[in-house]
Amino acid sequence: MELWYTEEHTENVRFSMKVKEHLFSEKSSFQQVDVLDTYEFGKVLTIDGLVMVTEKDEFIYHDMITHVAMATNPDIKNVLVIGAGDGGTVRELTRYSTIEHIDMVEIDELVVKASKQFLPITASKLDDKRVYLYFEDGIKFVEGKENKYDLIIVDSTDPIGPGEGLFTREFYKNCYDALTENGILINQNESPYYDRDAREMKRAHTKIKEIFPIAKAYQYHMPTYPSGHWLFGFASKKLDPIKDLDTDRWNSLGIKTKYYNTDIHVGAFALPTYVKGMLEDATC
Amino acid sequence: MELWYTEEHTENVRFSMKVKEHLFSEKSSFQQVDVLDTYEFGKVLTIDGLVMVTEKDEFIYHDMITHVAMATNPDIKNVLVIGAGDGGTVRELTRYSTIEHIDMVEIDELVVKASKQFLPITASKLDDKRVYLYFEDGIKFVEGKENKYDLIIVDSTDPIGPGEGLFTREFYKNCYDALTENGILINQNESPYYDRDAREMKRAHTKIKEIFPIAKAYQYHMPTYPSGHWLFGFASKKLDPIKDLDTDRWNSLGIKTKYYNTDIHVGAFALPTYVKGMLEDATC
Repeated sequence: MELWYTEEHTENVRFSMKVKEHLFSEKSSFQQVDVLDTYEFGKVLTIDGLVMVTEKDEFIYHDMITHVAMATNPDIKNVLVIGAGDGGTVRELTRYSTIEHIDMVEIDELVVKASKQFLPITASKLDDKRVYLYFEDGIKFVEGKENKYDLIIVDSTDPIGPGEGLFTREFYKNCYDALTENGILINQNESPYYDRDAREMKRAHTKIKEIFPIAKAYQYHMPTYPSGHWLFGFASKKLDPIKDLDTDRWNSLGIKTKYYNTDIHVGAFALPTYVKGMLEDATC
Repeated sequence: MELWYTEEHTENVRFSMKVKEHLFSEKSSFQQVDVLDTYEFGKVLTIDGLVMVTEKDEFIYHDMITHVAMATNPDIKNVLVIGAGDGGTVRELTRYSTIEHIDMVEIDELVVKASKQFLPITASKLDDKRVYLYFEDGIKFVEGKENKYDLIIVDSTDPIGPGEGLFTREFYKNCYDALTENGILINQNESPYYDRDAREMKRAHTKIKEIFPIAKAYQYHMPTYPSGHWLFGFASKKLDPIKDLDTDRWNSLGIKTKYYNTDIHVGAFALPTYVKGMLEDATC
């Protein structure tokens, strides 16, 4: 028997991967969590039937969600990570000895449980002694915090289900307040290619640029996400991801990466004309 | 009834699009040519069951295969295009009034016929008076030519079937000889993500860099090709795509593009670390 997992990228586009074994399937009070073992992508974690992480290409996502901010400001010491239950974002952050404290707030303990059991490749550093894990709602967690974090990473799902509140103006404003003077906000900023993703990309960027003096987006190639063309947002009060990048300093750290490097750091901010147009004209 | 077209990206990965109508299906002595009308991507041309062109994202491919060379050397006058039967590459080239002559060599007249009938969006400029269309084997066409073209674009399928000879050392050497002193070779250089594509990517690059003093690769987001992460090769005798780029001059031309701009020109040459590694270490 052949087993295939199929994801609807739109109602008219499907992406399918051949499955060795359906390893895990459990429903929390928030969402459905599954783990598949696949031929092409290794272990794959899905939430509500959408691919979140695969062993084959998680390095791309986790390199780009962390190192761009860290290379822009190597003095980052206190970090808040929201979402990211698979642990990959924290794994990359713990490679910086200069980081002193990481609060990780994941609403759904089941994601962490499944990742620890089946995705040690991403979950391996969740027990680092600098990591404080909270199973809480990130939206509430950030409320009322002031001048506390040098970096906030919003490693969210799409804005449906529990991820929806992570795409609101109020939430971004609370992040702004929770950040220090040189603070940086990195957010999962969706994709320009399919209509629904593009709408969310524009909405998120519009809200962020109303709040932060510096608000840009950068792109990466993520083959297991719809269209493979995805963006992160980079927002800050003072630091510019290109002008403030210190390539020599980052390269002197000797952190080995498979996707990120200081050339692609700069290159990733060069967006296609149609994407620039969407982001510049965006309204909520 | 629902009609779906499914492409095997690897034997373990499938990409499917919902089809309104199967508009065209004919077999030439070279290959099977089909045209579909799809809900998400508009008209889609396939060759031997692989997507070549879609109305939704052909602009990405055709912007990146032409404008990078043209912005590096705006004095290009004589161009040879091999393959490219859908006409999109020629359409972009004809936007430069400075180009005097374009030889387009497509082995399979059926591709041009199907494109003219169903893809006027790409085939619209094949009757430009500067365009000379040859239905011949591009490999033979380039043999023995010397110092004739300022730009050769190899807009090929994958190296299987009639496209195979366009990935050989002999062919690239003949292109070198056919180019003028400032000549540039652009080639479809496959993709780093899936094993088979990555192998061909490395093989093509290795051969080209043995022949050309300058041999680089640049990437683009192509959602309807496997993984969405694809490369073109840029090779030349003298010109460097970054150092010799004259951004002001290209921008003064006022050519409106949806994907290409002079920022992404530079950014596209910044490759992920794993791709750089593959290209540097590549052997045939």
